[in-house]
Amino acid sequence: MTLAIRPATLADVPAIVALMADDVNGARREDASLPIDPAYEAAFAAIDADPNQELIVAEQGDRIVGTVQISFLPGLAFRGALRGQIESVRIASDLRGHGLGRQLIEWAVARCRQRGCKFVQLTSQSDRTAAHRFYTRLGWDQSHLGFKLHFGDLR
Amino acid sequence: MTLAIRPATLADVPAIVALMADDVNGARREDASLPIDPAYEAAFAAIDADPNQELIVAEQGDRIVGTVQISFLPGLAFRGALRGQIESVRIASDLRGHGLGRQLIEWAVARCRQRGCKFVQLTSQSDRTAAHRFYTRLGWDQSHLGFKLHFGDLR
Repeated sequence: MTLAIRPATLADVPAIVALMADDVNGARREDASLPIDPAYEAAFAAIDADPNQELIVAEQGDRIVGTVQISFLPGLAFRGALRGQIESVRIASDLRGHGLGRQLIEWAVARCRQRGCKFVQLTSQSDRTAAHRFYTRLGWDQSHLGFKLHFGDLR
Repeated sequence: MTLAIRPATLADVPAIVALMADDVNGARREDASLPIDPAYEAAFAAIDADPNQELIVAEQGDRIVGTVQISFLPGLAFRGALRGQIESVRIASDLRGHGLGRQLIEWAVARCRQRGCKFVQLTSQSDRTAAHRFYTRLGWDQSHLGFKLHFGDLR
């Protein structure tokens, strides 16, 4: 199965949120009910206004089946390297295991190279062991531990 | 010991790079020799031009003794939460163990709250076990694994 991969538009927001909620962790966190919570549209506007943020969707025909967000982060470390960061990777639950995630991640990595990143980074929740095997198979190095500190109840 | 914590300026770049190189991992990666590599100044300019990036220094008197970079990342996840990300935390090696890192991290976390972040995140290299204890003591949850994919030799 091949994917059409492109930048998201405001009209894609409900489908992206539905993908985020279609997950054991996301189901607790997100609210995909329609009309979509305006907080999601406000977040889309902030992403869209920032040239260092790219929210991406993957389509099969008319259906949005995957999403990823890429952040381009300038920094002094690694001799002034721009780094790419991949967040919020999702593939529709009924389509997992068919190589779509691999296509989407490889697209995102290629995009980071194109923008001049020296490396890319991501974190994956500790309980997502299948995802960890997936990234290791794609050549990623599990070199770090990831920490979070939440200010509210939503986690 | 108390710290004066403020945004970095271009003139601070050599001192920040020296802090980054003053570390078992940074020593391999960075080049703090003077005049400073223009790649570091170009990276500073990119940070300075991006309102969602803040490079911070901590001073004692005239000496820069610590640094941290904060990135503010809009996203759809967690109901459209802005997240804060903390990178490249360094304290001068001769001053570690005196609570300066704690002051700097608490300042960065407060800055993220002030900007409206719902949570903050960071990664720490797997071999930095003292850092992991430090973040856990400050209330951070080690909930993720961090992966990197480098395109070149510098890692």
